[in-house]
Amino acid sequence: MWCFSRLPLRIGHASRRHGDRRFVATVVSGNKTARLVKQRLAQQVEQMQTQFSGFRPGLVVLQVGDRDDSNLYISSKLKAAAEIGINAKHIRLPSCTSEDQVLRAVLALNEDPEVHGLIVQLPLDSEKPMDQELITNAVSPLKDVDGLSCVNAGRLSRGELRDCFLPCTPQGCMELIAQTGVPVSGQNAVVIGRSKIVGAPMHDLLLWNHATVTVCHSRTADLPLQVSRADILVVGMGRAEMVRGEWIKEGAVVIDCGINYVPDPSRSSGKRVVGDVHYASANERAGFLTPVPGGVGPMTVAMLMQNTVISAKRSLQDRTRT
Amino acid sequence: MWCFSRLPLRIGHASRRHGDRRFVATVVSGNKTARLVKQRLAQQVEQMQTQFSGFRPGLVVLQVGDRDDSNLYISSKLKAAAEIGINAKHIRLPSCTSEDQVLRAVLALNEDPEVHGLIVQLPLDSEKPMDQELITNAVSPLKDVDGLSCVNAGRLSRGELRDCFLPCTPQGCMELIAQTGVPVSGQNAVVIGRSKIVGAPMHDLLLWNHATVTVCHSRTADLPLQVSRADILVVGMGRAEMVRGEWIKEGAVVIDCGINYVPDPSRSSGKRVVGDVHYASANERAGFLTPVPGGVGPMTVAMLMQNTVISAKRSLQDRTRT
Repeated sequence: MWCFSRLPLRIGHASRRHGDRRFVATVVSGNKTARLVKQRLAQQVEQMQTQFSGFRPGLVVLQVGDRDDSNLYISSKLKAAAEIGINAKHIRLPSCTSEDQVLRAVLALNEDPEVHGLIVQLPLDSEKPMDQELITNAVSPLKDVDGLSCVNAGRLSRGELRDCFLPCTPQGCMELIAQTGVPVSGQNAVVIGRSKIVGAPMHDLLLWNHATVTVCHSRTADLPLQVSRADILVVGMGRAEMVRGEWIKEGAVVIDCGINYVPDPSRSSGKRVVGDVHYASANERAGFLTPVPGGVGPMTVAMLMQNTVISAKRSLQDRTRT
Repeated sequence: MWCFSRLPLRIGHASRRHGDRRFVATVVSGNKTARLVKQRLAQQVEQMQTQFSGFRPGLVVLQVGDRDDSNLYISSKLKAAAEIGINAKHIRLPSCTSEDQVLRAVLALNEDPEVHGLIVQLPLDSEKPMDQELITNAVSPLKDVDGLSCVNAGRLSRGELRDCFLPCTPQGCMELIAQTGVPVSGQNAVVIGRSKIVGAPMHDLLLWNHATVTVCHSRTADLPLQVSRADILVVGMGRAEMVRGEWIKEGAVVIDCGINYVPDPSRSSGKRVVGDVHYASANERAGFLTPVPGGVGPMTVAMLMQNTVISAKRSLQDRTRT
């Protein structure tokens, strides 16, 4: 059912030394795949511009407050949008903004025909009480390119994949799995984590692409045993290097959504970023492995751009229909 | 997280013959449990009537057309409502009704303050084209006591169990599992089937009650192996007696949602109803087993009544708040 047109498979095959049973996994590069996705989107946007006299997809990132990490994420989204030709606008509301004012801003953007994608940057950095759910769900399902609203989650969880926006991180993971050439249908897939942004929608996407899916979490009794059964393993737990190579089935596809900072005195910053999977040991067991950084991260941004372009296309279809 | 107040555990312990390793499962009676639920609901409705001068929960069953099976299901719902003191109304629209007319009927009932629960009996038996999704989703999430709308599915799938109506069949299954006294948290649960009404929401309920959940379906490679790992097994595939006793883990909780008719020349009707589990062989392996009929079926109706009473309570709370 995974209907996104496949990119050309650019990754090489795993180097394996069968004599001593040591494998080296093929690195599934998110950087490379994201670059290809963005190139394709840029072509599509150029085509739209030519065909519809200067039309450009519009994306708004609505931020409350001024968190450093949010600023960093937003700037990478704006940069990607600029590369593709998406008209991206960053609206920053001060941290003294009330919930009602945020809601009114969302509703106004829902009505703006030049906005095809609208995302609320989370977490909200506000001095006032904010119902994050209420605000996320106020975004029109037609513009919810983050795919996080209740309506989108409902459609995705019940298999209506064509009617919704797929959340960006799990969608990026599916694209990386597709890059390996390993089919999803009929495989045993294990997802570790059940967050709204990663684990829960990842389960849905794997299930509706016909994998047999097991969701593990903090209460799972024997995590190594569950992991050992996975042909496809997606980890989004937020615990540094928790999944060990010894747990992993030989040849499995391992997708690591973790972004964790650990102390590293050898770096000038005093820290480095690692995933939820212990890379060195996983590298000796997995068939395919995503690195951190440079794996799932860049795909999340690329998929946000893709959703925005899809939304813009839909609006053009509606326009030509009427 | 399973927050519904537990009923007294009335079921006996399994008779087991350990010498030759033959077990006989404890029967988990849906008839008995549903009766207890309805008794409790009747008390609650009586209390409401006393406290709020004659107030009664209101349920509307909206039917299009005149299918025999629908008529049978509706009459059992109306009967249960009458037993409890719920004011249930059956609206039957002729099969020549248009989609627009059905939608207008739904919207009018959404506005009616005396209607606390509104269900659209599926399948729609109409001569005209009907978008079943559109109609199901037109029911206000505040009255969607079947729990089948997109908004309810989205909340449930993302773990917001307190904000939604739990779909009746999986909720009934959870109640039957609770009756066994076997804890859900940390157990390996396997769900066979991924329908909107049974499998998909069953996964959600088990997951958010902290089981490690695997969903199997028609594309699952080795179903007997998956089944053999289940401490809790819920089957909703719609295939007569497909799950064999030999597959089942000794002592497991087995909940059978199947309702299948098979030929039986010894009956005057020429047929009998069986579940998706082969009862005789499962009875020798499972620790707890639901019968068909008399297992999940009556619980579905009882849970619909429970959701209606919950909805009525919420409306009373809103009334006293304002």
